Amino acid sequence: MIYLDHAAATPVDARVLRAMEPYFGEKFYNPSAAYLPAKKVSADYEVAKAKIAHCIGAKGADLVITAGATEANNLAFTAPTSKVLYLETEHDSVRRVAQQYGGMAVRVLANGLVDMADLRAKLTDEVEMISVSLANNELGVIQPLAEIAALVREVRMDRMRRGIKRQLLLHSDASQALNLLDVNVARLGVDLLTLNSAKVYGPKGVGALYVAHGVKLLPLTLGGGQENGLRSGTENVPGVVGFARAMELAHEHVNGNRKKYAGWRKILLDELEGHELINRKHCLDNFVVVCYEGLDAERLVFALEERGVYVATGAACAASKGVRSHVLSAIGLSEAQIAGSLRLTLGETNDEAQIHEAAAIINEVVAAERKRMGA
Amino acid sequence: MIYLDHAAATPVDARVLRAMEPYFGEKFYNPSAAYLPAKKVSADYEVAKAKIAHCIGAKGADLVITAGATEANNLAFTAPTSKVLYLETEHDSVRRVAQQYGGMAVRVLANGLVDMADLRAKLTDEVEMISVSLANNELGVIQPLAEIAALVREVRMDRMRRGIKRQLLLHSDASQALNLLDVNVARLGVDLLTLNSAKVYGPKGVGALYVAHGVKLLPLTLGGGQENGLRSGTENVPGVVGFARAMELAHEHVNGNRKKYAGWRKILLDELEGHELINRKHCLDNFVVVCYEGLDAERLVFALEERGVYVATGAACAASKGVRSHVLSAIGLSEAQIAGSLRLTLGETNDEAQIHEAAAIINEVVAAERKRMGA
Repeated sequence: MIYLDHAAATPVDARVLRAMEPYFGEKFYNPSAAYLPAKKVSADYEVAKAKIAHCIGAKGADLVITAGATEANNLAFTAPTSKVLYLETEHDSVRRVAQQYGGMAVRVLANGLVDMADLRAKLTDEVEMISVSLANNELGVIQPLAEIAALVREVRMDRMRRGIKRQLLLHSDASQALNLLDVNVARLGVDLLTLNSAKVYGPKGVGALYVAHGVKLLPLTLGGGQENGLRSGTENVPGVVGFARAMELAHEHVNGNRKKYAGWRKILLDELEGHELINRKHCLDNFVVVCYEGLDAERLVFALEERGVYVATGAACAASKGVRSHVLSAIGLSEAQIAGSLRLTLGETNDEAQIHEAAAIINEVVAAERKRMGA
Repeated sequence: MIYLDHAAATPVDARVLRAMEPYFGEKFYNPSAAYLPAKKVSADYEVAKAKIAHCIGAKGADLVITAGATEANNLAFTAPTSKVLYLETEHDSVRRVAQQYGGMAVRVLANGLVDMADLRAKLTDEVEMISVSLANNELGVIQPLAEIAALVREVRMDRMRRGIKRQLLLHSDASQALNLLDVNVARLGVDLLTLNSAKVYGPKGVGALYVAHGVKLLPLTLGGGQENGLRSGTENVPGVVGFARAMELAHEHVNGNRKKYAGWRKILLDELEGHELINRKHCLDNFVVVCYEGLDAERLVFALEERGVYVATGAACAASKGVRSHVLSAIGLSEAQIAGSLRLTLGETNDEAQIHEAAAIINEVVAAERKRMGA
């Protein structure tokens, strides 16, 4: 089995599971309870939050723990009270909530990068938030967050000079980037940052939103008042402890990972027939998006599955509904190009031998499919 | 160590953890992915939902999986568009959201049961939902849901006869009851029912809302469209598989549990000095609420902790904020009675010897405290 869909899901690292285990068993207490063993669990929970925060250059108190990136993205959108801008290639958990609040889409260029001219043009005085993912989940394209942050600062200064009091926040979903980039909220210049445990070999059902000092959010749910009243419900202690261990491992290995994946990526691009879609300069090192124009990528997925190679046509949640990728449309691909595109995402379940083998199998399957099509 | 706070948290049963383990590791796939191993995980997820639903006499498709009871309660409150009634002794995750939507509190009697006369009086034509927990989380009082459901049916008929089209829904938070009562949505007559994994020896961070056919909800979060569009985000597969195993075990042992806990409860009530607060006829068999008027229950909690006995003064989330229990106020206790009340909740970490020992230790600690107070 060769799994090349690490952008869709990652297995829980054995070290992560080991860190979680005591909190299912002997350390099961409710962190809000008054007796000492529960207070120790509460302290461990805060330490775990601090560890997660530390990996992005923040404090534990800056994080709101959520059930995943989707909830974190939704929570981020409670900050603006008027117009928001979002990149047209954002994940549905940003796009759909942005659209509900009358958001306006900012275009991307053919290379998947934000169209800064379009962003500048749409950045009117009514805009309160810009949401741009650090790395796109279908293409792996890394957006120039620092450049956008500089623009945000410039606009804030200008608004101040003109006596306009409306806030301007920068939100970024960093879910896909945490294994590959050294993410730091100060360097990125973001006010809100979405993190996801399930993409960094941590447990599913856990995520977090980094919230800069002074940014006001509204709770999506009310109740016992956990997470500073922003996210009520008994804390998922094992989940957060596991998330923390996963973040530490990701953070620790980020340089090694980049090098390793860049090497494997080069192998794939050298050996694979097919047209590379995204310039590797602006792309996460574990993403390879290839296009087999004229072929049906969904058929390729099934043919590859029979050979034990698991790949994707796009984001898993969109793929399951048979919807054409809005991301591939946005970068200007034709219907035939979209229909023939595969996303291969490398990860910790792979080794170099697998990468060579996968390239060979994909080439064979593609050749067979072209033959069948008479192409 | 004698843990008598099973209403606050339960450890994950070893059989539950065993059921979850494969889904952290080899079965880690994203259920939305297109290849076969992911589709198998998706099928396993649906089977788990069906198992949970089966335990309450429903189908898997009737459930929306959430991150816990708090989110499920909040989701339930998206159903009504106008006035709601809720019991004044409800958990904050019902109370606070009900209050936000202009809810009106229904009184309870001194025994903690719903005041049916007050409910009838407040059940005007504007009311769209009534929210009454099956068993209260501080007292264990079991509410007459079937009687309330009969009233709801009667009111619906009357509204229909008078040409009033407004819906009337019955919601119940069953979190505390699932180990002790055979919960069946048809028999209870509820339209919406909240379930909680963490109270039935399942993992934290998982819950569900049962939604009867035809009841319309609004999503709290938007995104990939999972859970029929009502709760987006990659499914927490291990969590839900664990929740299902925990529900099966609870369901299977409900009669044995009742008998066992009723026996232990009798031991405690026979051996404990102190005044029993709630009539055992209307109370979950694992709840014992005792009052030591004139003493400070918070001091008792700490003194008992030193002797290795862990008990609560009220709900863990309220207790952590030093807020006087709104539940004990609602049943008409004086400030001194509230301040002197302990909640002991029995569970699977206990055995009969522990119960005798706990009673002796509590008596000793109470006697010492009375002596110290010169009472």
